[in-house]
Amino acid sequence: MNEQHMNAAAYLDVKGKSVDACLDRLLPDKAAFPPSLHEAMRYCLFAGGKRIRPALAFAAAEAVGGNPDLLVEEACALELIHTFTLIHDDLPSMDNDDFRRGMPSTHKVFGEAMAILAGDALQTEAFTILACGYSRGVHTAERIVEVIKILAEASGSRGIVGGQVVDLESEGKMIDQARLEYIHSHKTGSLIAASVLMGGILGGASPDDIQSLRRYGEAIGHAFQIADDILDVEGSQEQLGKSTGSDQKKGKATYPNIIGMDEARKKMMECYESAIDAIRSFDRRADHLRDLALYIIRRQN
Amino acid sequence: MNEQHMNAAAYLDVKGKSVDACLDRLLPDKAAFPPSLHEAMRYCLFAGGKRIRPALAFAAAEAVGGNPDLLVEEACALELIHTFTLIHDDLPSMDNDDFRRGMPSTHKVFGEAMAILAGDALQTEAFTILACGYSRGVHTAERIVEVIKILAEASGSRGIVGGQVVDLESEGKMIDQARLEYIHSHKTGSLIAASVLMGGILGGASPDDIQSLRRYGEAIGHAFQIADDILDVEGSQEQLGKSTGSDQKKGKATYPNIIGMDEARKKMMECYESAIDAIRSFDRRADHLRDLALYIIRRQN
Repeated sequence: MNEQHMNAAAYLDVKGKSVDACLDRLLPDKAAFPPSLHEAMRYCLFAGGKRIRPALAFAAAEAVGGNPDLLVEEACALELIHTFTLIHDDLPSMDNDDFRRGMPSTHKVFGEAMAILAGDALQTEAFTILACGYSRGVHTAERIVEVIKILAEASGSRGIVGGQVVDLESEGKMIDQARLEYIHSHKTGSLIAASVLMGGILGGASPDDIQSLRRYGEAIGHAFQIADDILDVEGSQEQLGKSTGSDQKKGKATYPNIIGMDEARKKMMECYESAIDAIRSFDRRADHLRDLALYIIRRQN
Repeated sequence: MNEQHMNAAAYLDVKGKSVDACLDRLLPDKAAFPPSLHEAMRYCLFAGGKRIRPALAFAAAEAVGGNPDLLVEEACALELIHTFTLIHDDLPSMDNDDFRRGMPSTHKVFGEAMAILAGDALQTEAFTILACGYSRGVHTAERIVEVIKILAEASGSRGIVGGQVVDLESEGKMIDQARLEYIHSHKTGSLIAASVLMGGILGGASPDDIQSLRRYGEAIGHAFQIADDILDVEGSQEQLGKSTGSDQKKGKATYPNIIGMDEARKKMMECYESAIDAIRSFDRRADHLRDLALYIIRRQN
């Protein structure tokens, strides 16, 4: 089958396997000292994530004519950051979620201290992998520094962590759409957008390409979170691997409860269309980006 | 006064002020959104740390003929990592310490969730600052990537976080000297050694210089932790900013209780002498490294 025509699910399947194999190779073995920590780090990381962020990075690299196989290690860093934030979000003092990806969450299995430390070490590992990857001689040091900057800015107090703080502070409160969009764009959108940008940069994007990819990434990040909110209301527990309506139970604001389900769907479609529009000038090499955008708004988990 | 002859305390005072000013400039203002997070991040960071790690980086750069003023931003990253680990170590699920640097610890003031997130964001900020620093045009991208690698490796599961895991798992247990040395070399030694290496690399060290600085850093990191253990037994609460004997109360193994106070002092002096010996071939430009080594074993807090 011509890779160009693989649909997004098949693309995710193939690319996800290469990410899993690379993560397994790069991370210390779970028997490495201290084994308790390495086991905890691997537990949530290999719990069946779809690897959407790495796939977006690969698709962005392809879209600008790059070879996605040359950035598998760097794409793993995205998944390490993502997993670190999931483990910390689930902690008792945060969202207090007992399940994640259909399995007991990290702190339920390994205890709270170990979950905090596993998350900490996964964050560090992301930067270790990016910096160590330079020795492969595939990317210039300038590009490595640039992607480290993008990933770090997306993850910190003005990115994911900032979004989580505002999310926690908004629980059980009436918030407006602007606040909800802040939470989403930081907690979820920033890493999705960073994935696209990182792939573009490592794939050799021109400054114009970067602008287009930035618009695509921001729009699809937004669509991703609205889709998540809709799924939280409509999906089944089996599909989600966590309780349906869990946001509502925790008093979390979502698009459906702030602007209504119809408006939420409409907004999601607008974001999807903006994403597609942003890469309109790209040729067929951007088809995986187009497929992934559709996948993101149609996924069932 | 000739800077060459400033003693370590004066050196720390001057260099610490430049680090504080730089951290204040680089970190988001505490009014920056979300203000609660930025306030929490700044709280422990500006609680009067001595900035020993940045000072070691500056002194290492000087020792190899570099200009320490050119790495103030990069040295700030060391203090961000150090503070992140302090905040997380103090959490109720970890060491459960109510005081740090003479003030209520971060989770006592801002709550547990915010303390976890502030620590997370401080770690991210360290890598942000290193990667953003490249745009100043002072250091090559290759050197920036190298110091990111050193800092990340020192901080993660095979560095500080690994040490903290083994420390927690050893509480209340009889452990042998090898286990104690593992805890120390990872929890404390790794960042001290990384500070010296980072300074050396950014200062333009030769491969031979790097080997010497590595030996100096490892030895002085070891001496640092033995001195901490001795202070925990002998120092006053006022000097330490935390309770004397707190390690003992928590059932933590220390050098004095595993090998006795006399042997602990002897071991500390051996480490000091190894550190001095490692940089024996360096000229007077290494005097600040020599002064800091003496300061580390003689400090009262």
